[in-house]
Order: sequence, then C-alpha cells, then structure tokens
Amino acid sequence: MTAALRGARLAILAPISWPTPPPGYGPWEQIASNIACGMHARGLDVTLFATGNSRSPGRLASVVPVGLEEDRAQNGEVATALHIGSLFARARDFDLIHNNFDWKPLTYALATSAPPMVTTIHGFSSPPILGAYYAGASRSFYCSISDADRDPGLDYLATTYNGIDPSDWTFVDRPGEYLVFLGRFHPEKGAHLAIEIAKRAGVRIKLAAIPQDTAYFDELIAPHIDGDAVQFLGHVKGTARNDLLGGALALVHMTTRPERFGLVLVEAMACGTPVLGARMGSLPEIVVDGSTGFLCDTVDEAVAAVPRLAALDRAACRTHVETTFSTERMVDRYLAAYAMALERKLPSSPNAEELAWRQHDWWDRPMAFTDLPPRPNAPMS
Amino acid sequence: MTAALRGARLAILAPISWPTPPPGYGPWEQIASNIACGMHARGLDVTLFATGNSRSPGRLASVVPVGLEEDRAQNGEVATALHIGSLFARARDFDLIHNNFDWKPLTYALATSAPPMVTTIHGFSSPPILGAYYAGASRSFYCSISDADRDPGLDYLATTYNGIDPSDWTFVDRPGEYLVFLGRFHPEKGAHLAIEIAKRAGVRIKLAAIPQDTAYFDELIAPHIDGDAVQFLGHVKGTARNDLLGGALALVHMTTRPERFGLVLVEAMACGTPVLGARMGSLPEIVVDGSTGFLCDTVDEAVAAVPRLAALDRAACRTHVETTFSTERMVDRYLAAYAMALERKLPSSPNAEELAWRQHDWWDRPMAFTDLPPRPNAPMS
Repeated sequence: MTAALRGARLAILAPISWPTPPPGYGPWEQIASNIACGMHARGLDVTLFATGNSRSPGRLASVVPVGLEEDRAQNGEVATALHIGSLFARARDFDLIHNNFDWKPLTYALATSAPPMVTTIHGFSSPPILGAYYAGASRSFYCSISDADRDPGLDYLATTYNGIDPSDWTFVDRPGEYLVFLGRFHPEKGAHLAIEIAKRAGVRIKLAAIPQDTAYFDELIAPHIDGDAVQFLGHVKGTARNDLLGGALALVHMTTRPERFGLVLVEAMACGTPVLGARMGSLPEIVVDGSTGFLCDTVDEAVAAVPRLAALDRAACRTHVETTFSTERMVDRYLAAYAMALERKLPSSPNAEELAWRQHDWWDRPMAFTDLPPRPNAPMS
Repeated sequence: MTAALRGARLAILAPISWPTPPPGYGPWEQIASNIACGMHARGLDVTLFATGNSRSPGRLASVVPVGLEEDRAQNGEVATALHIGSLFARARDFDLIHNNFDWKPLTYALATSAPPMVTTIHGFSSPPILGAYYAGASRSFYCSISDADRDPGLDYLATTYNGIDPSDWTFVDRPGEYLVFLGRFHPEKGAHLAIEIAKRAGVRIKLAAIPQDTAYFDELIAPHIDGDAVQFLGHVKGTARNDLLGGALALVHMTTRPERFGLVLVEAMACGTPVLGARMGSLPEIVVDGSTGFLCDTVDEAVAAVPRLAALDRAACRTHVETTFSTERMVDRYLAAYAMALERKLPSSPNAEELAWRQHDWWDRPMAFTDLPPRPNAPMS
C-alpha cells in the first residue's frame, strides 16, 4: 500500500435500498460492506454512509434510518437526496470518496472541488444515465466491474472485479448430478435456455429464483416444471444456497444479454461447481473456459458440453476464486485505484475517441442497458 | 434598492417541466420568468437556469434542451439532477442563488458554501419533503407565497406573493351575469361546491378546467352539466381566459383545502371580477372581504352572498391587484428578501419552537399536503 493511503480518511457511499451489509438480497450494499471492511482492515479511516441500521467497521454516517425496501412508507426520492447530500456536505472531511451508489452522486460531486472521488459503475440501467456519467467524468474516476461492462465514451481507472469471502462457501470435491439455475426469472438471465439444455442433455435441473418477469415465467418456465426433471425451488438463500450450489454438476448461466459481472458465477466456483455459460459479457473474464467451466455460443454447444462437466477439476474452480475473486483481491484492486486517484486528483479531459463515442447510438455499445429489450440479434435467442 | 444588489450576479433556477416562460400551463416557470425579467429590469446581472428553449432577459444556462413535459422520452430524474448540478457546479460565479425548483436543490446546496441562497417554497407536495426543507434550512433562506402557506418548523425571510402584469388582463367595469370556476377538477378545488352554490342561487355557472380527478369529475361534476345552468368549457387559455374571467359576475373559489396562493384569484380581480371564496388558506390575504369579494365559511353563506356580488366595486378589484399583486410589487418583495440574504449570508439556527414543531404530526400544520386526502373535518366538505 502506498504511504498516502495509510490512515487516509475514506468516505464510502452505499445504496440505501437495504442496510449495509444486507440481511438478504442487496448486491450493491454487500459489495460496499465488503469494501468498507477490507479497507478498515488495511488501516484506512473508513466512514460508511449507509442506512441507520447498517454496520460499519469504522464510523457510520446515516440520515435514513432503515432501507427503502424495508419501509416503503419512506419517500425514496427525498431519502436518496438527503443521503447523498449528507456526504457532500462533509466532503472536505475526507481524503477520498468512494461512490457505490450509481450516477446520481456525480451530479452532487460537480458542486464540490475536493476530495478525489472514485465511482464504481455497478450497472447501466438506461441510456439516459450515460449523460450523467459523461458529465461526472470531469469530477470522478470510474471503475468497471468487468472489462466487458465498459462504455467506450468513458475513461476508466481500473476494472475492480467484485470479491467474495471464499470461506463463506463450502468446497465440494465430488461433482453433483443436477444442473442449477440461480438468479432472476427474466429473459436476459436465460432460465428458458437452461431448461432446454438440461432436457436435451437428459440431466435434472433445479431452478432457484424469484419470478421477476411473471409473463415470461408463466409462458416459458412454468410449463416445464414437473418436480423431477425440472424442479422449482423458489428463492434460496443462506446455507441452503451454499448446499444447492455445492451439490450441483454445474451452474447454467446462458444469458441473452451481456452479464456485467455475475456474483453467482463466483459463488458457484467457490463451491467447486463449474459454470456452463454464454460466451458474452463478463463470462470470458470470470470463467476459465475448459478449466472452471465451458463457454458456449449456442444452445447446441452447451448441450454437447454437459457430458464433459463432470471431468472438470472442481478444486481448480475453488482456487480460481481464491486467487482472483476474493474480497482480499478486490480490496487490492481498489487500493491501487485509490492510490491513482489520490495522485491524479482529477480525471483528465476526454480524448477525441471518447468524445466521438458519446455521440453513438446506444446499441453500438458492448454493454447493454437493463431497461431495454435484448437486441434482436442476440446470439442466444 | 440597496447598493449591494446593483449589478449583483443572480442565478435563478427554474423548473424544467416546461420552458421558461411556458407557452401554456407552467405556473412555476411563469413566476421564474417574471422574476428574471423583473430583476433584469432593475439592473441585476441575471443568469436563468432553465430548458434550452427558454428565453432569458440576461444569460440563459441550459443542459436540458426542452421541457420534460414536451418530450417525455427524456429521463426526468437524470435531466433534473444534471440541471440542478449544472448550477451548483458554478455556484461561485454568482453573488446570490434564487431557487424556484422546490426542495431537491437544497440537498445540492448543502455541498456548497457560497453564495447566499433564497428558496421560494411554491408548494408542499408531501410530508416527507419537509425533511429536505428542514435539512436545507441551514443553507437556504425561505420565502413563502402567502403567510398561510408556512410550515411552523421553518423560519422565513419573507412572504413574496406571486405577481402578474395587470396590463395582460382587460378590465371590465360592468358585472357579468354568470359565475365562473377556473382550475382543476379535483375535490380540493371545490368545483362541486361552486355548482351547488350557483344552482341554489339561481345563477348560471361556467366551468373551465381539465378533469384531473376523473372519478370525481364523473361522479360529482358531469351529472350537473346541462350546457345552460351548468356549462363545461374544458381548458380555456389566452384571450378566451381573459374574456371568460372579465365577463363573470364572480370567480367561485370554494376550496376544501387551504389554497397556497391562487394565481387565478389575482387574474380575476385584475379583470375587475370579484371572488366568492372559502375563508381558508391564502384567501384572506388575497381577497379583501366585502370589497374585492366575499369570504365564506359554509356553502350557505356563499349562496347568501351571491346577490350582493354585483354591488361590489369592480375598479377596487383592479386597483387591489395593481397595488399589491403586480409583478413590480413581487420584484420589490424579492429585492428586499435578496438584500436580507446578502446581509445575513447564512440562515440562523432553528429556535426551540421551530425544532419542536418539526416533531409534530403532519396534520398539526396550517398548510396541507397535496398528496394526502383533505382532512376529515375540512370546513367545506
């Protein structure tokens, strides 16, 4: 760690949908918590801006008592504005700000001249928010959560893969006899393709997810559920999630839209379970094709790969997570990013290529927006 | 005008639902425009932050090309954040900021230390936004648009009544033979009471409004419309609005919830038309009871007052607007408020009484929130 970071006063802005860390769902809050704990352990002076019922390894700063999803009587717009404003009102108390709350804080940061700021872009929900990222690029450094999930109109300080604590997951060395799908029932997550692959390969599949897109679920998923070849488990969390992942032959992750990162991929591999996934988005960066899983361009390829899954080295999956996707490695990456931000203080102006990209159509982008339907020629449709 | 204001660099933040000034509906944008023009005329160096298709008497600063209501494909959340952020990013270029865009800019202002800021509270949409006003009270001075529309938990610099240009309205010296209702069809605006009063008094009524609450319109308004005793004109604007108001015996304004200001009251009086209104909210401040109209506590009282309307001095109505509710008078009031803000720089801390009020139930307040149903014991129900 560089000398500049020892004892540095770091403000971490977490989302407020859930407490940080979240009791159940809440991926961004979980990552913010992991970062806060990791930075505290490395000797930084951490102030976590999160809901009042959050836990901080250092100081906790809150103006919103509980998560917006925990008490929907709260006005999300007001709570969000006060939450963000409460950090920037004290911006000068810190040496560095790490924003994990999407684009809106950037518009506040424009009003403050200090200190250096790092923003992790956890997702691109819709095309218009790029306007906020472009405007904020003069003030905040950006980190992406995979090389694939980058907008070519932006400059990035680093790719800071999300990290998990491998000790939270039980390694299972023997391949299981079922495939597993874990996520949301939404066309982009490809549960319908997972079912097709399992049926054609003659292997049982277990589906653990909440129907997000109910029309999709009713039409393309529900008719296949028979409690045997296709089993529906609903939302699975905690140790049941650990057991479900560890006991599987493979996690099937045949997305139809580029995955930004895919925490479940890392969780599966931490259990020793390889990934059978679509060769798009972040997957080529997270899954070592032929070693910790198989990446496929078509359903046919995936069906053909199923018989080879049991031969993969499950220990290699675990090791891959420990060496590359642990919280410790994530913290290393952020520390390097912080050091660069402290040294450069403000981002440089966009270059000609970035400026040109900012004029392009939305679809001319490697990543995709979650509020648009998958592009017509998506490889997996 | 104080010397400090001569040539002062004033940033005026307008809403962005419509251009400033708006081509049709858009009361906040209209007031922001009136203020900008008035201040420019008085020698201030005005920068108006508004949509790109707005007109400024001085400089115009825009990041949002057209009104959100004009092009709904725009992302309102992003556009709003960038619009507000664009002002505060340049806050130090100004001597004074006048915020006409509700509570959200306050949360940005908390991040900046300069310059003094005045916020006109144009409305209280819902209880939670009080939290933003309370937080922003350490940074911005507040103006109310009537003495009635004040929250007792807040300190106010001044009441700055909205102003109109009387020359935009034609004075009619002879009383008309019909009553008029002008506004929105929503229970709080009391069109159903206006109809009852007109029918019982045996006077024709013309309703010029858009059905906002369609269930209310269908149930309590539509059954009375007969094209004669009760006439429905739809939305009326421009010269037709001028003629409709000027030709009336009186404007009926029997609200069931306290009116904040009531621009239509002033428009009617500018035409010489008195007001038959509810004795609540801003009306006792705007209508001189017995001179420019009659204020009533009940429908019975209002019915009894109808025969006396024709005897009111219509010239007194016009004069009242010219002396008290003209744009010039509004600008005078804001100039005085600006001078105080420049002198005091930052608001003082809340006193014990204000702090105590901030803990009260929402209903313990003289003003009411527009997203709640009228309180059960509303006098006019």
